[in-house]
Amino acid sequence: MSNLDAAIQDLIIANRILAREEVVDAYGHVSVRHPDKPNRFLIARSLAPELVSPDDIVELDLDGQPVREEHRSLYLERFIHAAIFAARPEVTAVVHAHAEDTLPFGIAQGTKLRPVIHLGSFIGAEVPVWDIADKFGDTSLLVTDMAQASDLAQCLGGHRVALMRGHGFAAAAPSLIEVVRLSVYLPRNARALMRASQLGGAVKYLSQGEIEAHNRGYSPHSAATWRAWEYWANRAGCAHLLTRPGGGGTG
Amino acid sequence: MSNLDAAIQDLIIANRILAREEVVDAYGHVSVRHPDKPNRFLIARSLAPELVSPDDIVELDLDGQPVREEHRSLYLERFIHAAIFAARPEVTAVVHAHAEDTLPFGIAQGTKLRPVIHLGSFIGAEVPVWDIADKFGDTSLLVTDMAQASDLAQCLGGHRVALMRGHGFAAAAPSLIEVVRLSVYLPRNARALMRASQLGGAVKYLSQGEIEAHNRGYSPHSAATWRAWEYWANRAGCAHLLTRPGGGGTG
Amino acid sequence: MSNLDAAIQDLIIANRILAREEVVDAYGHVSVRHPDKPNRFLIARSLAPELVSPDDIVELDLDGQPVREEHRSLYLERFIHAAIFAARPEVTAVVHAHAEDTLPFGIAQGTKLRPVIHLGSFIGAEVPVWDIADKFGDTSLLVTDMAQASDLAQCLGGHRVALMRGHGFAAAAPSLIEVVRLSVYLPRNARALMRASQLGGAVKYLSQGEIEAHNRGYSPHSAATWRAWEYWANRAGCAHLLTRPGGGGTG
Amino acid sequence: MSNLDAAIQDLIIANRILAREEVVDAYGHVSVRHPDKPNRFLIARSLAPELVSPDDIVELDLDGQPVREEHRSLYLERFIHAAIFAARPEVTAVVHAHAEDTLPFGIAQGTKLRPVIHLGSFIGAEVPVWDIADKFGDTSLLVTDMAQASDLAQCLGGHRVALMRGHGFAAAAPSLIEVVRLSVYLPRNARALMRASQLGGAVKYLSQGEIEAHNRGYSPHSAATWRAWEYWANRAGCAHLLTRPGGGGTG
Repeated sequence: MSNLDAAIQDLIIANRILAREEVVDAYGHVSVRHPDKPNRFLIARSLAPELVSPDDIVELDLDGQPVREEHRSLYLERFIHAAIFAARPEVTAVVHAHAEDTLPFGIAQGTKLRPVIHLGSFIGAEVPVWDIADKFGDTSLLVTDMAQASDLAQCLGGHRVALMRGHGFAAAAPSLIEVVRLSVYLPRNARALMRASQLGGAVKYLSQGEIEAHNRGYSPHSAATWRAWEYWANRAGCAHLLTRPGGGGTG
Repeated sequence: MSNLDAAIQDLIIANRILAREEVVDAYGHVSVRHPDKPNRFLIARSLAPELVSPDDIVELDLDGQPVREEHRSLYLERFIHAAIFAARPEVTAVVHAHAEDTLPFGIAQGTKLRPVIHLGSFIGAEVPVWDIADKFGDTSLLVTDMAQASDLAQCLGGHRVALMRGHGFAAAAPSLIEVVRLSVYLPRNARALMRASQLGGAVKYLSQGEIEAHNRGYSPHSAATWRAWEYWANRAGCAHLLTRPGGGGTG
Repeated sequence: MSNLDAAIQDLIIANRILAREEVVDAYGHVSVRHPDKPNRFLIARSLAPELVSPDDIVELDLDGQPVREEHRSLYLERFIHAAIFAARPEVTAVVHAHAEDTLPFGIAQGTKLRPVIHLGSFIGAEVPVWDIADKFGDTSLLVTDMAQASDLAQCLGGHRVALMRGHGFAAAAPSLIEVVRLSVYLPRNARALMRASQLGGAVKYLSQGEIEAHNRGYSPHSAATWRAWEYWANRAGCAHLLTRPGGGGTG
Repeated sequence: MSNLDAAIQDLIIANRILAREEVVDAYGHVSVRHPDKPNRFLIARSLAPELVSPDDIVELDLDGQPVREEHRSLYLERFIHAAIFAARPEVTAVVHAHAEDTLPFGIAQGTKLRPVIHLGSFIGAEVPVWDIADKFGDTSLLVTDMAQASDLAQCLGGHRVALMRGHGFAAAAPSLIEVVRLSVYLPRNARALMRASQLGGAVKYLSQGEIEAHNRGYSPHSAATWRAWEYWANRAGCAHLLTRPGGGGTG
């Protein structure tokens, strides 16, 4: 299988997983940088992630424009991906979604979203909140051009995730498996923090050292990482699409 | 397919979607104005929405009475639909339901339901709460005649949704797709607001300008709108009933 | 079909519905008074409600003892049913269950469970809380003999439901459909009240007059009642067991 | 069937049940002491519990090392099981998991997790909270060697469950059925306590006497115990693997 075909197949799996794990519904999308052309990325045409097949994947440039003539509709917010890939050379995969339990932290101003569980360490010590109104005034809250998307990417900076006020989040990671993993555990970490806050008393967040230790110990090619990817693909009904990187090793 | 047949088929899809997305259970109903006779509307006979087929659709007038002899039981609360269609010529579709997470906002008097997420902008800047007891005293809370239904329609006024205290909500929109969409995102907006309130600090609601901008940008015929309708129909197991308006264009 | 066979068939449906709607899990049970012998009742042998078939139904007397030789294990808490049938001649059906969202109201002493939604009116204006420790000291909390069960029945008095502290609830109604309906909407009413309490401000409970009006308007043989029973049976995968009382009329 | 084969078959059922009941996802694991060699235990290789088959079970010693040459990856945190089996001769089965609703009690310092429902009595009167940072400073929070695992086992002491701050819990019981049961009802007890706390007023915990009475009355071989195991196995789709201990008696 070519690098491109493998990337597309993994992108299909990622779409299905994010749908099954309720990170996306009809809205929200995941993209991956083109494996051979770093100034291109792959993303579905305008279609619910659960329904995406290889034929639905399109190739866009870093302005969010299709590199081939395209008659099908594209995601209105594809610029989010373009701007993050442009700003962050080390990033290989991006998710934008509205996962329900991340929303309160972009709306309420009293509690910051920070890691409280070890699987939340992937979100990093700080999660900035981007409010489109700060620079662009009264909008539909949708990110519909490169100016807005670049502003979001700037707010994201070197972080893994930025919340988008009243809208959702944007996440970036060095690999597709990592960005999916982060997106699945982000709402779980959010729920743990919401409920811990309600129990009263001080909340023990992960320390900076713990976040670093956990992320240092992480490998996208380890057995533990593959275990989750395989599990989620099974739940999403697409285990038949799995191809172990490296040809079947056990990590 | 005739206009009427197409309207009935879409109404079946709407029934199934509202059941699958837990907006309705055995109770709650959705109706659509007759495409050719504006003083008639289409709604199921007394049957759980999940189980509705074309043969179950009946045609009622704007007093909530069947226009043909009908031996089957009708929804007791069909008057809600009749009164809203009578009061609002621009409305083409109505939902009445008890979606669980909308209920607290009709019961508690401390927090108003308002849009906090962009997909909540469809509910409009203000959501009035109708309390049947204000005019009708001690009732079963069910809307069982035109007098009660007209009072509810008056409270709804020009808004998209009215909460009904201790009961549920009534929603009205210019198209079936819009009223379904609104009904699905209404509880999600309610949950986001409930949880944001619990996190503490000020809550950032959508501004009036943002609500207007989002709704201005909305089209019931866009690719983004169709994407959700197609996704929900797939989840509800009735994708085979989908017919793209305009004959397969991509929006 | 004989009265007895019909009663057993409906009891199977009730078992499956209560499992599907998460009122019971492996624990919890539903019983119905024998249609021809008022001092007997029908209940499953010790088996998870989801798995109950006609052969699993046993006939017990009002001391909770089997009327025929029985080698199979019986529910340890069958006395709850016996005592309520003995104390309440008008009651035809009883449920005991641990539905999760009813539990907090038996544990916390700050908020009484009362109807806040119209479908909650079936629980009645007052829901007493029975604490087994009041009379029996330190027990396993299980109701394992007639003395404990009779004390519970006395606390229940003429009400529809009693909460059992740290354990669950017992519900009684004039018909099987009613006790199932009540048991399904009891946790929903509990959730609406919990969430309304968290929103702040005064909570609008149903008034005494509203509860009475709703219950006065209720008939176990109406189309609206049948609609829910049919819907739940479909969800529980046992629609094929449905037999409309009165031979297929529409109510 | 040999003792070993029977133990492996039950371990498969336990893996599937814990996955279906959302105690584990891709992460978390369950083990059982070797039925014939008390200084060995059985656990899956690194694989999501939902996907575990008999061939995936490996035999480890009480240092967490495989007793046969093993090329497949093992769970990184298998030392948790080894240390608990080593410290507690009466323990036959161990679970480590991240069940979501147990997490807040390890993070917030204001409310202790204690039994409030009778099915929560299995967790015992006191649930210690182990914080890996107390002895080991900034780590990934994962238990990756025997020193850390032994410290956790020491914190667990003679209790049934210890919470692990920001991570999950470890549970130990005299039988596999008991540790599964405990793990399923632990999050339910946690939710009941969280919600009761929010309702306000004093919370009625189970008394020491009630906990003891409930646990005294419990038998892993009773009909009531088997009822839940059979129910969960059915839900998890592995009822065909069930073998009643004692060859089909009814308990």
